[in-house]
Amino acid sequence: MTVIDVTHEIPPHDVRAGSLALVRSVQYLAPGVVLAVVDPGVGTDRRAIAVEVGDAGEAVFLGPDNGLLGAAVAMVGGSRRAVSLTNPDYQLEAPGPTFAGRDVFAPVAAHLCAGVPLDELGEVVDPMTLTPGLLPLPQEADNGGLLASVLWVDRFGNVQLNVGPEDIEAMGDRVTVRWGDQVRTARRVHTYAAIKPGEVGLVVDSYGLVSVALDRASAAEHLRLRPGDGVTLAEPA
Amino acid sequence: MTVIDVTHEIPPHDVRAGSLALVRSVQYLAPGVVLAVVDPGVGTDRRAIAVEVGDAGEAVFLGPDNGLLGAAVAMVGGSRRAVSLTNPDYQLEAPGPTFAGRDVFAPVAAHLCAGVPLDELGEVVDPMTLTPGLLPLPQEADNGGLLASVLWVDRFGNVQLNVGPEDIEAMGDRVTVRWGDQVRTARRVHTYAAIKPGEVGLVVDSYGLVSVALDRASAAEHLRLRPGDGVTLAEPA
Amino acid sequence: MTVIDVTHEIPPHDVRAGSLALVRSVQYLAPGVVLAVVDPGVGTDRRAIAVEVGDAGEAVFLGPDNGLLGAAVAMVGGSRRAVSLTNPDYQLEAPGPTFAGRDVFAPVAAHLCAGVPLDELGEVVDPMTLTPGLLPLPQEADNGGLLASVLWVDRFGNVQLNVGPEDIEAMGDRVTVRWGDQVRTARRVHTYAAIKPGEVGLVVDSYGLVSVALDRASAAEHLRLRPGDGVTLAEPA
Repeated sequence: MTVIDVTHEIPPHDVRAGSLALVRSVQYLAPGVVLAVVDPGVGTDRRAIAVEVGDAGEAVFLGPDNGLLGAAVAMVGGSRRAVSLTNPDYQLEAPGPTFAGRDVFAPVAAHLCAGVPLDELGEVVDPMTLTPGLLPLPQEADNGGLLASVLWVDRFGNVQLNVGPEDIEAMGDRVTVRWGDQVRTARRVHTYAAIKPGEVGLVVDSYGLVSVALDRASAAEHLRLRPGDGVTLAEPA
Repeated sequence: MTVIDVTHEIPPHDVRAGSLALVRSVQYLAPGVVLAVVDPGVGTDRRAIAVEVGDAGEAVFLGPDNGLLGAAVAMVGGSRRAVSLTNPDYQLEAPGPTFAGRDVFAPVAAHLCAGVPLDELGEVVDPMTLTPGLLPLPQEADNGGLLASVLWVDRFGNVQLNVGPEDIEAMGDRVTVRWGDQVRTARRVHTYAAIKPGEVGLVVDSYGLVSVALDRASAAEHLRLRPGDGVTLAEPA
Repeated sequence: MTVIDVTHEIPPHDVRAGSLALVRSVQYLAPGVVLAVVDPGVGTDRRAIAVEVGDAGEAVFLGPDNGLLGAAVAMVGGSRRAVSLTNPDYQLEAPGPTFAGRDVFAPVAAHLCAGVPLDELGEVVDPMTLTPGLLPLPQEADNGGLLASVLWVDRFGNVQLNVGPEDIEAMGDRVTVRWGDQVRTARRVHTYAAIKPGEVGLVVDSYGLVSVALDRASAAEHLRLRPGDGVTLAEPA
């Protein structure tokens, strides 16, 4: 069995960022057991869940039922079966209820990998009752533009929007980008290297989404854009 | 053989933090070879040691003899045998004496895993001569309170004290917390999620110790508490 | 097959730092497939290459042809064969041209490990056409001193120079160090622990190079030295 550590760098308490990290990696992970924990409600009555997707045994997602798993589960075909992890026989005794990653999810993952059937881990629940994972969609702005939002900032400071290239196809090579009280004209380019010094570039990034980028510098830092910020894209006037 | 990378994030030169990281993980590591290096005295006459615990072959700890290993070794039953790593046959030739992790401890770990007996690695030493690992215990304060100290700050900014829940059992649901020139009334809660905005919470954390925490924010940053700081806990007047 | 994650902490766009990280680790990695990506020109016409070194099958380096691989390849004997990774059959389909690490280099590495011959991966190219990896050498200064530069700052803040101990052998135990408008007298010591409070030490570090260091503090931070900075070493007047 191979253990892959996808990331330990999700910002604290940020369920949305964790959900996106899963979406980015899920197509390279299955078949297998996928354990994800961003769990500000740990120890409350939020459920700890196992969600099976695909044909039996293809993949099981483990995590808190707080929306973290929903988008990734949907991407690989949706939930077939779900179990609330209520059987203590497959969990560790813990000094307190505040570290389910160690005391609940990791031992359950190990037992699943060792062949324990899903329905021994707790009581079966209706997948329809799971907290959905919602990612924001762009909307049409009043002026014909597109009201988008920042999904993600990578370690280079590139600012990924919830916008695909087809969404801005009609806008042409130059796009007016507005956020807060800022306005910039960005140029659509095919590679990061094509962005000139001082220029704002729009690149179709490695997830197929439109990113705001600068020439070997952090767009997030220089343009002061953060995940969740609203950004409007439009044809130049 | 499986290699587990527990952490590379111990603050530079901080033997105490390394010691605590070992204590936190040691119960999940054995049987095996546990290699730990926080080694400000590297290249001096401090000894490089291997410490065997439990029944033969159960676990061997490798590291500098500077107190780093002591608390973890004690937690899993204490030292049975110890060897000073003086045999160069099981070490790498090095361009200098400043990277024992690479040149001494890692190759010795590999040789142990490959079956080399402990006593071939160097000369046997009396475990009583090893530098003990000392963690601070809380003390009674003059006013009947408890003089504690900060053991650890996790990546969420939760501030772990060297205090168990039984130490403050008699103080009731609200506890006066003093440090530096600050005083706050904290409320004992069972989960991080139960802490209300603006409130200071005391949570029994995942190691069974009392932690100072805020509502989805860093207590360390907002209350300006750091490892080693003294904190007094008492019943409200 | 074992996957070793050497580092994910190269500063963004810093081909030189990536090249040095490879040089530091390469002697411990072969035989095997070595994948390295620092790739500011991703998606342009820069080549993606595989470089074979040593006897057939000993090691193959994968990365962009931008100088990243050159120094490490030279250290282990130089290139025997090189291939431009132009065969899409061994690569993943990608939503864009901006993540060759995921879409080109990682799948090619997996296919190599699975036994695919090097020359199936693309067209053979002349190793002489590869971008060389150049590391700076120290030069004699006008006053008989040595004009060096900072190669690397480690996580302790030790400042590694491109200078070997033999280069400063004739200077004696104390060395005048100049950079920017600063001058300090440094003392040559054998271990970090020998550096006294307030003193600047010169240590032969774990790569056999001369490093500027302080007593359990960051020389880079306190002396304001960064990779690429010029530093002059000379006998005290």
